Amino acid sequence: MVRVGIVGATGYGGAELIRFLAGHPHAQIANLYSSSSEGEALEKTFPHVTGLGLPLLTAIDPVKMGADNDVIFLATPAGVSAELTPQLMEQGVKVIDLSGDFRLESGEAYKTWYKREPAPAEWVQKAVYGLTEWNHEEVAGAQLIANPGCYPTAALLATLPLSKSGWVQPNSWIIDAKSGVSGAGRGVSLGVHYSEINESIHAYKVSKHQHTPEIEQELFRQSGQSAIVQFTPHLVPMTRGILVTAYGQLTADVTAEQIQELYTSTYADKPFVRVRPVGSNPHTKEVYGSNYCDISAHVDTRTGRVILLSVIDNVVKGAAGQAIQNMNVMFQLPENAGLPLVPAFP
Amino acid sequence: MVRVGIVGATGYGGAELIRFLAGHPHAQIANLYSSSSEGEALEKTFPHVTGLGLPLLTAIDPVKMGADNDVIFLATPAGVSAELTPQLMEQGVKVIDLSGDFRLESGEAYKTWYKREPAPAEWVQKAVYGLTEWNHEEVAGAQLIANPGCYPTAALLATLPLSKSGWVQPNSWIIDAKSGVSGAGRGVSLGVHYSEINESIHAYKVSKHQHTPEIEQELFRQSGQSAIVQFTPHLVPMTRGILVTAYGQLTADVTAEQIQELYTSTYADKPFVRVRPVGSNPHTKEVYGSNYCDISAHVDTRTGRVILLSVIDNVVKGAAGQAIQNMNVMFQLPENAGLPLVPAFP
Amino acid sequence: MVRVGIVGATGYGGAELIRFLAGHPHAQIANLYSSSSEGEALEKTFPHVTGLGLPLLTAIDPVKMGADNDVIFLATPAGVSAELTPQLMEQGVKVIDLSGDFRLESGEAYKTWYKREPAPAEWVQKAVYGLTEWNHEEVAGAQLIANPGCYPTAALLATLPLSKSGWVQPNSWIIDAKSGVSGAGRGVSLGVHYSEINESIHAYKVSKHQHTPEIEQELFRQSGQSAIVQFTPHLVPMTRGILVTAYGQLTADVTAEQIQELYTSTYADKPFVRVRPVGSNPHTKEVYGSNYCDISAHVDTRTGRVILLSVIDNVVKGAAGQAIQNMNVMFQLPENAGLPLVPAFP
Amino acid sequence: MVRVGIVGATGYGGAELIRFLAGHPHAQIANLYSSSSEGEALEKTFPHVTGLGLPLLTAIDPVKMGADNDVIFLATPAGVSAELTPQLMEQGVKVIDLSGDFRLESGEAYKTWYKREPAPAEWVQKAVYGLTEWNHEEVAGAQLIANPGCYPTAALLATLPLSKSGWVQPNSWIIDAKSGVSGAGRGVSLGVHYSEINESIHAYKVSKHQHTPEIEQELFRQSGQSAIVQFTPHLVPMTRGILVTAYGQLTADVTAEQIQELYTSTYADKPFVRVRPVGSNPHTKEVYGSNYCDISAHVDTRTGRVILLSVIDNVVKGAAGQAIQNMNVMFQLPENAGLPLVPAFP
Repeated sequence: MVRVGIVGATGYGGAELIRFLAGHPHAQIANLYSSSSEGEALEKTFPHVTGLGLPLLTAIDPVKMGADNDVIFLATPAGVSAELTPQLMEQGVKVIDLSGDFRLESGEAYKTWYKREPAPAEWVQKAVYGLTEWNHEEVAGAQLIANPGCYPTAALLATLPLSKSGWVQPNSWIIDAKSGVSGAGRGVSLGVHYSEINESIHAYKVSKHQHTPEIEQELFRQSGQSAIVQFTPHLVPMTRGILVTAYGQLTADVTAEQIQELYTSTYADKPFVRVRPVGSNPHTKEVYGSNYCDISAHVDTRTGRVILLSVIDNVVKGAAGQAIQNMNVMFQLPENAGLPLVPAFP
Repeated sequence: MVRVGIVGATGYGGAELIRFLAGHPHAQIANLYSSSSEGEALEKTFPHVTGLGLPLLTAIDPVKMGADNDVIFLATPAGVSAELTPQLMEQGVKVIDLSGDFRLESGEAYKTWYKREPAPAEWVQKAVYGLTEWNHEEVAGAQLIANPGCYPTAALLATLPLSKSGWVQPNSWIIDAKSGVSGAGRGVSLGVHYSEINESIHAYKVSKHQHTPEIEQELFRQSGQSAIVQFTPHLVPMTRGILVTAYGQLTADVTAEQIQELYTSTYADKPFVRVRPVGSNPHTKEVYGSNYCDISAHVDTRTGRVILLSVIDNVVKGAAGQAIQNMNVMFQLPENAGLPLVPAFP
Repeated sequence: MVRVGIVGATGYGGAELIRFLAGHPHAQIANLYSSSSEGEALEKTFPHVTGLGLPLLTAIDPVKMGADNDVIFLATPAGVSAELTPQLMEQGVKVIDLSGDFRLESGEAYKTWYKREPAPAEWVQKAVYGLTEWNHEEVAGAQLIANPGCYPTAALLATLPLSKSGWVQPNSWIIDAKSGVSGAGRGVSLGVHYSEINESIHAYKVSKHQHTPEIEQELFRQSGQSAIVQFTPHLVPMTRGILVTAYGQLTADVTAEQIQELYTSTYADKPFVRVRPVGSNPHTKEVYGSNYCDISAHVDTRTGRVILLSVIDNVVKGAAGQAIQNMNVMFQLPENAGLPLVPAFP
Repeated sequence: MVRVGIVGATGYGGAELIRFLAGHPHAQIANLYSSSSEGEALEKTFPHVTGLGLPLLTAIDPVKMGADNDVIFLATPAGVSAELTPQLMEQGVKVIDLSGDFRLESGEAYKTWYKREPAPAEWVQKAVYGLTEWNHEEVAGAQLIANPGCYPTAALLATLPLSKSGWVQPNSWIIDAKSGVSGAGRGVSLGVHYSEINESIHAYKVSKHQHTPEIEQELFRQSGQSAIVQFTPHLVPMTRGILVTAYGQLTADVTAEQIQELYTSTYADKPFVRVRPVGSNPHTKEVYGSNYCDISAHVDTRTGRVILLSVIDNVVKGAAGQAIQNMNVMFQLPENAGLPLVPAFP
């Protein structure tokens, strides 16, 4: 059994990691860490885990953490991960970081978009970007995983096959994304106050969201062509789910069927990507609670554009689920171990 | 007092017309018409109107309707309006049609997008497109108003100033729209079944929505330049509200401040359009229940695009509210008579 | 025109007061007061009031406030009202307090349920409990109104007629209430965090809610019989609306029709109470945004109980709307001036 | 592996059965039956099951069904189950019926509350009421399980221990229940139309709901004392979850701690009932997607009442989850096999 430690168990990412690990046949929750609630039972924070027999929250101590776990998930805010990761890695333990601290290769880009100092370059270089479907081999050999952001996961799984094919003008990508509120985490603020958010939708961080350079970096890495991407996130009155509507200008006279074929073959052996029929419209609820990413393609012959639709559960494939998927690959376990295959519908 | 008749009072558009007319200082609800529930009180269908002293539902009879009303609102489905309108107009009564039957000048386009036979061309030609802010003079003199669709209202108020200015490539417009569920009306179907729609978002009618040619027609009419528009509607788990996120490729090096100035001056004397500060992100809830359209502009210097955000309440400015606004103009009443100025927040 | 001042304009109660006063034919918003944001425009806090031409927020100064207004609404938290009210009243201005500070005659009860020191008894005695339908005459002559709590408004309008009739055992009342989230106000906390509240329902303050003694006091005042009431509030995933389900043990063999008659005659001339047909089930949405309270009665002959259902919009009839209604009565204006009669449905 | 057949796979109950069986270590989905869509893939109806490799929908044929399955779940409407069950049982196959057709021992009661003819008495007598925690032994030996209704499950698990103890007056029970919309199933109607239900709450079937006699029957069976119960269901704007608030008049001076002890010992070895701390308020979301029933008790010394709070996920413990739990017991499998232990929070 893989011994797992979780830092940040009192957040939503931590809660989902526990959901998957509690039912995982080859891993066990060995330790839960917290900087503020040490000695407490997690069910004081999250009554929904009552009765699972979880370990008490304990204090963060990198040396001891290295000895007591085979892998540590960091479900911590940007900045915290940057500090903790090197200390943990020096103990030889594997680390899967759910924050954005190790995703951007360029420290300059990190500074620009995150408005804070980047993690030291030598540690950033050790990180493997954990978009499992596209980096399977590197993930298998990694000590440190930079688990992808929620928006980039949905955006990249949708756009990468076409980007790589060269059938879309790289700079034409417009990614209009819609997310449920849980992506904002558990910290209270007026921006996630029920009465302000319910029965309302709005855009935010237009042209300024820190997931933009992450998307551009991976588009470049996989396709070899640089792309300047227009990315606009929106907040939708629902708890979970991301829908990406991606628009690309086609460079050739490609049909929806050809695109369908490209996607079907690209993801043929990937257990968590489902290419939906040409012209279908996936609902975020159709992947609720699961690790699936469902994708469909439309071609508009009037405008010469492809419109890709891609849905995930932001706290599963967009965070904790993909992190478990990466752990499975790192430890040579079945890729879907511990991960629910059937969405909870309705 | 203007005597008003409403056909289709048992639908959501009809319900909102009643809300505004019940408090209107210069108009009165003279007659409610229904093809199926004649003789009944409307509160049997809509308990929320209990106690308002409304007239009973009566049968449709064009000749009598012409005599008993100064204006008739048709809150009826496509097809029904096409049939009823000529009969009413021959009686000399004014007609405000909330369906799509008289919006498209081209019968060919109507047939292609609506998948049914168009209304006779001679009647379509009499219709004035009731986007009040842009057609004020024509509305004032019209006998027949084609009240705009909900999506076109939000899309056109946002894009028309820039289209007219020539600062955006006409064929670059991508209009990604998000709507609450009430836009689908009161007819039951799995597509608006609570458990399927709640906690979910999805696109629909991608590249096929009948509001596309309506947007293109008016962009052309006001700017003199033809534009092929990419329009994608989405269904959001909320009852009311539309957010349009419109992307346009700038042809010149225009700043957000210049665009702000353009919009502020364009809408200076328009009581229902509020140009919000540069870089702000209007929430649909901030116009809930009101006739406002709030617009803001973002410029992304990395991509050379303008991103316009526009919010309305789909059953108010997107339907019944704009219809009342048109009636006010047609009868030389204050443009905002009977229309709530303050949104119900939160 | 009645000159109105509002303290607490940056909260939800304040926002609704503005909505009603902006369209009020006999009153005007003269001043908006804030202890923290003086000099600012309210639209910085509430973009939805953009363009209304409201006065800037000014500092609290009781002497000046007395001179500049005919009536002052206190949409302030418990404690603040207790302090401010005497200072304002000494200036001769009328005060309508939306907090609970002046509702309970017994200082002892206030201390027990509110867990804080009560307002001075001599000032509490001057307050008239503003349940307009039941205290019309006293409201008309009052200088200080203690505007009822949201739950008591729905509970008392439902139970008072039967309590007064003697047909129900006074101690048998069980009031199971369900409220939207806006009742908790605009202050951020985990208890009103979107992701925690959405898609969930729970009870809170079981047998401990401070509205319990308020309900008991008024039941006693109007019926002359003391009643110990079981009151349980619940938080429902919606922004607005309260539904009260009240259970009472019938003392006599009374039919639903007799109860219907009692209610119809009790509220015959009350513009904002609608007695719905026997056996009907009012939805909170059927009063959304309006000042109505809709009530229906069921009798279960198997159990010998009456089940009363009562719905209001908690921020309207349960707060700002009823406050305006009281103002109208205090200034001999039409009772429904400025108050929307038609709910915004759907 | 237990071979499982499902009738009614195109409904919500069927969808959840598939979710649990797809991950069940000791059972497999052998056959899916449908009266209308034979030959089709289920993913045409439910895209969320895409890629699971499910069998095609096949026609209903009792003889063949008996041979091809070890157990058959009937996720069918009342009436259909009554007809199908005897034919299946005659083939020797075990049947778990999720409808209400075999729950009421009294045909008279069935007729009164369901307004239709009851199933033949000889078959009803063979049925075991599958409230697993209270009928474990009978379930283990049954050929036919009448799977409990959603409301009775939450109500009975909460009230049975106190009913049996004699500490509550049997006729004092008032069960005020609040349910998400999925309980109404997938059939379209105005009663579950998104725009009518969202942002609204209402009671329905007051004193007339068919789950009332089911609750009364089991209270009597387990406690030996007849009880006339007041039961009121409400529809809450959320998809999943039931909260029962149950009020009982205490016959003795019992403390909340004593009640807590009673419940803790009653459910000590029951994996799916969690007795929450005295005075806590379980949220339905804290059991979302899981088979848990969480219960807490409050005692109000002012009124002499106990207030019990009980939450379940209506489509899991209230339907498909409990059905799987019963199957596990019938086939001597671990009681929680295939059932998620950790709710999906938030």
